Amino acid sequence: MRLRQLGEFGLIERIRKATPPGPGVRLGIGDDAAWVECPKRSLLITADLLLEGVHFNLRWTSFYGLGYKTLAVNLSDLAAMGGSPAYLILSLGIPVDFKVEDVEQFYRGIRALASDTGVALIGGDMSAAKRFLISATLVGYAPYGAVRRSGGRIGDDLYVTGTLGDSALGLELLKRKRQKAKRRGIAHLLSRHHFPTARLKAGTLLARERLAKAMIDVSDGLLQDLGHICKASGVGAVVWQDALPLSPAYRNWAGSKGSFYALTGGEDYELLFCLRRRDRARLGKIQKKLGVPIARIGECVPPGEGIKVVNGRGEPVSVPVGGHDHFKPGS
Amino acid sequence: MRLRQLGEFGLIERIRKATPPGPGVRLGIGDDAAWVECPKRSLLITADLLLEGVHFNLRWTSFYGLGYKTLAVNLSDLAAMGGSPAYLILSLGIPVDFKVEDVEQFYRGIRALASDTGVALIGGDMSAAKRFLISATLVGYAPYGAVRRSGGRIGDDLYVTGTLGDSALGLELLKRKRQKAKRRGIAHLLSRHHFPTARLKAGTLLARERLAKAMIDVSDGLLQDLGHICKASGVGAVVWQDALPLSPAYRNWAGSKGSFYALTGGEDYELLFCLRRRDRARLGKIQKKLGVPIARIGECVPPGEGIKVVNGRGEPVSVPVGGHDHFKPGS
Repeated sequence: MRLRQLGEFGLIERIRKATPPGPGVRLGIGDDAAWVECPKRSLLITADLLLEGVHFNLRWTSFYGLGYKTLAVNLSDLAAMGGSPAYLILSLGIPVDFKVEDVEQFYRGIRALASDTGVALIGGDMSAAKRFLISATLVGYAPYGAVRRSGGRIGDDLYVTGTLGDSALGLELLKRKRQKAKRRGIAHLLSRHHFPTARLKAGTLLARERLAKAMIDVSDGLLQDLGHICKASGVGAVVWQDALPLSPAYRNWAGSKGSFYALTGGEDYELLFCLRRRDRARLGKIQKKLGVPIARIGECVPPGEGIKVVNGRGEPVSVPVGGHDHFKPGS
Repeated sequence: MRLRQLGEFGLIERIRKATPPGPGVRLGIGDDAAWVECPKRSLLITADLLLEGVHFNLRWTSFYGLGYKTLAVNLSDLAAMGGSPAYLILSLGIPVDFKVEDVEQFYRGIRALASDTGVALIGGDMSAAKRFLISATLVGYAPYGAVRRSGGRIGDDLYVTGTLGDSALGLELLKRKRQKAKRRGIAHLLSRHHFPTARLKAGTLLARERLAKAMIDVSDGLLQDLGHICKASGVGAVVWQDALPLSPAYRNWAGSKGSFYALTGGEDYELLFCLRRRDRARLGKIQKKLGVPIARIGECVPPGEGIKVVNGRGEPVSVPVGGHDHFKPGS
């Protein structure tokens, strides 16, 4: 069935029926506003706008995966503050010739990850649109206070969770040669692109132990997001190229591009954080509880030195301009 | 200057600087998430998606007015729950050839109404887009509990605040004859269309006094929104055509359309509510404090009778199908 046949209110009713009540929800989908419990004294709120043709391409993205990723990227923002998630509000613009089943698959992807992370879908808005668009707002808590981008100091270590560049390399392979998708390691890269893991456990633990003094999630590319931390903290940074955590699949497929995707590729959704050197031993003690490996990839330096990447011999490495600015085409 | 020259981060920085800190805001625009106080035990959350070409037309809408209205329609949703607003999250998709000044005018419109209603703009997301799109999420409180759509009973009175149909008639005049915009009364209709007033005071008071048993804001047309109340409450309704509150400007310009816009036109943003008959005297006592006139326009009847409009002689009036379903073109 197509959306134009079911209608707006028919679709809302289907989604409402398929959505479990969820913890803390007094009144969910279907009234003028949702009404939910707020057991904490403060809230974290983040939002992401995802547009077809800008942020995703339905030629190589499933509706289920898109739903999953929509929630994942918002969870990642809360993880980067050291927070825990609670309520999701979702507004969609949908072409009227979309199949109802596809939209339901999208919500299935949302619900799968929501259920795993204790998130309740509580409402939103809907409209017909030329191209699919998703606007998500996630509300959560900061049980240990919020970790900002501005707490870095000169001399701090720079750490990152997981591995870098997998998602961007996976996307590149998708664009180039879809037929090879079954080959060795590519499945890993594609999974990292389509089903990113928000580092909620690591983020909360690093906040609870007051270990992360500044933190951000790597969504626009390591160097660009490091730039946000440096700007907010008033520091520069050195990144050691040889210390970048790369997956075996990445090493296998990056080829002549080397660490390019790891440095500038987007959508890793790993956490980048500053640690005071004196806290290294404390970090070592809780390391296994983070749920993800971490790597020390550089340090904070005086702001005048800017941000540079150095190779194993300490020589500066030239990195092509990367990252993304939505209003500068080709950026 | 055009957006493509300023860039995403340049624009965010300008907006951040122009946005006052706001009550309860620990950390506003510029980090992975906003961090705000939550002094209450429960939250109301509502969202609206506004798309150029679907919900608004930049040929006859100013950027300032669009900003103002974006917040107003969300405030109206909270008013309809008996709530009070606190935090606004705003995601925008903007064409890269837009003037920066126009986007700033949009935010000025937001800030003007935000300042009047104690709302703080705390964050959101931005992207380039083919056409302007606005996704707003408003967080607030329900100090007296939330007034749902489902509390109506057979025998209840139906009341509405303000006047009906002004906005839709104003839009119709805009579409037909812009050159007459200065003529008598039209300014009133246009103002009602561009700068709707959310009935926050009335909504909160009706909730506090437990007078509104079911409530909704009239955004999609009186009959359609009444339909939502009837469905949720399991009742039917009779509307008295002669009792519909119409402004002098409406009476002057509606012509042969009579009560058509008042019954089916959208964007009135008045409150429609059910009152137990025994509460009429109590409503009368607080009426002057509501900040807006109210009119008794009908009553709830058994569900089998559906929703009908009757004239002064009690005869059913045929009403063209109105209201709006986003996925059914021409609805």
